[in-house]
Amino acid sequence: MEDENRQTPEEGQAPSKKAAKKEAAKLEKQRRREAEAAAAAAASLSIDSADPLAANYGDVPLNDLQSKAVTGRKWTDIGALTEELKDQQVLIRGRAQTIRAVGKNIAFLVVRKKGFTVQCVLTVQNDVVSRQMVKFATGLSRESHVDIEGIVSVPDTPIKGASQQVEVQVRKIYCVSKAVPNLPINIEDAARSEIEIEKALQAGEQLVRVNQDTRLNYRVLDIRTAANQGIFRIQCQVENIFRQFLLSEGFVGIHTPKLIAGSSEGGSAVFKLDYKGQAACLAQSPQLHKQIAICGDFDRVFEIGPVFRAEDSYTHRHLCEFTGLDVEMEIEEHYFEVMDVVDRLFVAMFDSLNENFKKELEAIGKQYPFEPLKYLRKTLRLTFEEGVKMLQDAGVNVDPLGDLNTEAERKLGQLVLEKYGTEFYILHRYPLAVRPFYTMPCYDDQTYSNSFDVFIRGEEIISGAQRVHVPELLTARAEACGIDVKTISTYIDSFRYGAPPHGGFGVGLERVVMLFCALNNIRKTSLFPRDPLRLAP
Amino acid sequence: MEDENRQTPEEGQAPSKKAAKKEAAKLEKQRRREAEAAAAAAASLSIDSADPLAANYGDVPLNDLQSKAVTGRKWTDIGALTEELKDQQVLIRGRAQTIRAVGKNIAFLVVRKKGFTVQCVLTVQNDVVSRQMVKFATGLSRESHVDIEGIVSVPDTPIKGASQQVEVQVRKIYCVSKAVPNLPINIEDAARSEIEIEKALQAGEQLVRVNQDTRLNYRVLDIRTAANQGIFRIQCQVENIFRQFLLSEGFVGIHTPKLIAGSSEGGSAVFKLDYKGQAACLAQSPQLHKQIAICGDFDRVFEIGPVFRAEDSYTHRHLCEFTGLDVEMEIEEHYFEVMDVVDRLFVAMFDSLNENFKKELEAIGKQYPFEPLKYLRKTLRLTFEEGVKMLQDAGVNVDPLGDLNTEAERKLGQLVLEKYGTEFYILHRYPLAVRPFYTMPCYDDQTYSNSFDVFIRGEEIISGAQRVHVPELLTARAEACGIDVKTISTYIDSFRYGAPPHGGFGVGLERVVMLFCALNNIRKTSLFPRDPLRLAP
Repeated sequence: MEDENRQTPEEGQAPSKKAAKKEAAKLEKQRRREAEAAAAAAASLSIDSADPLAANYGDVPLNDLQSKAVTGRKWTDIGALTEELKDQQVLIRGRAQTIRAVGKNIAFLVVRKKGFTVQCVLTVQNDVVSRQMVKFATGLSRESHVDIEGIVSVPDTPIKGASQQVEVQVRKIYCVSKAVPNLPINIEDAARSEIEIEKALQAGEQLVRVNQDTRLNYRVLDIRTAANQGIFRIQCQVENIFRQFLLSEGFVGIHTPKLIAGSSEGGSAVFKLDYKGQAACLAQSPQLHKQIAICGDFDRVFEIGPVFRAEDSYTHRHLCEFTGLDVEMEIEEHYFEVMDVVDRLFVAMFDSLNENFKKELEAIGKQYPFEPLKYLRKTLRLTFEEGVKMLQDAGVNVDPLGDLNTEAERKLGQLVLEKYGTEFYILHRYPLAVRPFYTMPCYDDQTYSNSFDVFIRGEEIISGAQRVHVPELLTARAEACGIDVKTISTYIDSFRYGAPPHGGFGVGLERVVMLFCALNNIRKTSLFPRDPLRLAP
Repeated sequence: MEDENRQTPEEGQAPSKKAAKKEAAKLEKQRRREAEAAAAAAASLSIDSADPLAANYGDVPLNDLQSKAVTGRKWTDIGALTEELKDQQVLIRGRAQTIRAVGKNIAFLVVRKKGFTVQCVLTVQNDVVSRQMVKFATGLSRESHVDIEGIVSVPDTPIKGASQQVEVQVRKIYCVSKAVPNLPINIEDAARSEIEIEKALQAGEQLVRVNQDTRLNYRVLDIRTAANQGIFRIQCQVENIFRQFLLSEGFVGIHTPKLIAGSSEGGSAVFKLDYKGQAACLAQSPQLHKQIAICGDFDRVFEIGPVFRAEDSYTHRHLCEFTGLDVEMEIEEHYFEVMDVVDRLFVAMFDSLNENFKKELEAIGKQYPFEPLKYLRKTLRLTFEEGVKMLQDAGVNVDPLGDLNTEAERKLGQLVLEKYGTEFYILHRYPLAVRPFYTMPCYDDQTYSNSFDVFIRGEEIISGAQRVHVPELLTARAEACGIDVKTISTYIDSFRYGAPPHGGFGVGLERVVMLFCALNNIRKTSLFPRDPLRLAP
């Protein structure tokens, strides 16, 4: 179940100076090797020119890659290479994932594209494949892009090292783009599961484990693994299902500004900047603007966009920049209407992911094994009080009017799973004191609020509430929370021109993907993560 | 917590101090009036308590708006009020758009919701509607939210002042949320077309014209107009069609960081900030990261997200923050493949908008009249040289190897429209010198490049090109452009691990909407625009 390593706070840090120097030295070495390899290749080419088949292989000249012509050639997708194409000639493009020579007369290349792989074979034959051609192929560096023309053949025995069950008997092979001979990360190392490493270790073999910082430093290589390709395709689908569901229910997608005036005086740290001489900061959420949109008659809105938090959090679940999925909607009479949207939206999302994206989930699970998420057709709802009671009954000491810490949330997740058989549930009616000032208090008890959090596998992914839409109450609540009302007058004024009762919620896209797939670190679900120490690539 | 971020909403800043003071004084005046109105309302309520029908009208107590109960009541959408509901009792919620008393016994209210309006009538009748009830209704301030229960009736003559051709005979009326009695902008003023103002002026009547700064200062009111509701619904659809088209063609949606180290590639005017002690800036485009995604095997990607430009541009078409629609894709052999995507994508988009969003386009056109965009089934492509020749033949003096200025672009748009009958076309093979260093030079003439711009109604909306994917050439091009190669080593290194030929383009969402609807200012298509002087609301 556990992959790589349980995250400690040190992980996810940018490389230290020492490490950076080491990397630089390593790169320098690589470049030297690359230069030598290039010289060797040039030397071998001079031999090749004596080969009558020399036109059938070699590096594609740069000029031919500058949109020289529309030839009408058709490239076949590697995923489309099946027995039906037997004996046909095909043209494919992809990366040379592995290259293996058998003596001087045979070479095997596994070529990869869009997650599919095919074995390509060069066998020396008069007038078809020369020794020099085999030499050229075996001299290619891994991850180089190649164009291959060849004949599809069907071997007698199943092919283990490639996804496609046919081979391509190579007739022509050209290198479109060379990779450096020594990659900072080998894709097969990056794609290895923790289980494989452990098994090999037990058998006395030490396999390479690529640590997280190296992965993130060379993200351009790391994201080529099947698991990473799956993760970001799932992320795209989570967003897409979110959008399509909301559009189908009459929500309008909006974009609100990330550059906002002033500098926040609230709890969270913000990134500050100078905006043409005015003090500005990066939005920590689209809260104000999505509420203005509701007061501006949009009825139901959502936004998908970056959210910035300058907090010094070094956990497995915090980033300084992440993708927020935000929703705001008019309420007819109860904040349960907002929870109803959450319920239907996420059940639809989980269903769709499980049904339509099996291949991607399998690819992720192969490297990072996980159990499918357990969730109910109708999402479980517990009040905060009920949650506290469950914890107390289990002997956990919690403040009934405080917030739950991460540990208590995790414990409650376990208790809920045992009792209700679900890893996805809503906890609502939080104590008013632990929610933002704009949260609507409960009608019957001002100690509590019309708010909720949503949990997956014991971790919070969503926070939502009914908002205070009455300017006088909003002012009073701000004052009660010790906020200088003058600093938020624009916010409060937005509700003076007729404001419908409304509520909404916010979700972190990276957290949804992380927890749906039970991944152990949010850096795995951010394409280019930003944390207090990492600002590159 | 994702959305409940403890952030204090920012203070708004008006464009100038003077204006701000004026606004403040105005608001203060309003508040005084509001207080007086409230006192008057309270006085009238004390009379109402003597009314046996007093329970059928009044302000909804706050407590009832705090999610007190799920009653199962059903609100009927105003748009759903048709003759079929004749004699039935309905419950509706909406804004009191206009309120008119006829003597003391009759009141008419036009109630608006989601762009639909219905006329509601109160007529004094024993045991049904009291004089005090009519007084309560006529005392409501415009834009207040009301709940109305009543009977649907069908009048003999067509209704001019509302979208629905039925009336609601009011039985109960409650105010859910009060607007201040004197709004800084009246919605009917904000919704007025320039033509109406001119016509009235000719008839000797001076109607209120709401200027753009006032609109933007009170955007919460301004966006309630039918035209603005249409504009932002069209914007949402432009984005949606863009996404769905690309997803259907195998593109993956990604999110790249907006916080990047150092100062952005190419351009100079960036917003700088301190990132935990490191120099950082806001991304001017996702250029580097979308290219890394391509080199990382994602084959075809797109991103929708904010783009930041700190340029001091005060034009009708520049913003400091806008929504970028970015695409990057592998190229098999020619940058025409990228132009093919642009062609099919935008033709599909224009078709879909015209077919499926007529109501929204009509609402926009009613206030801002425009001719439908003229475009061809197969988008016209001209080379830059051909464009220059057309301009020169028309007597326009242009540098054949320089960039076209805004005026020349507009003129060329006219010439193209006259000659080819289209307002949407692609101009390609731009001079290399006027494109960024990472643009691929033409195979046959290094003076030109594999690049293109796309124009709507004579204004540029898209810029695209094949990129240089060969590290050595990229280095040479950067040096030739006077860029210190050390500062972009991360960028160049991304191409050392096998990089496929690729290209892409970027579109400004706000510009597409502005030019499709022939609007005269980009601030009309940004929900909360940011320009060098505006950072609020």
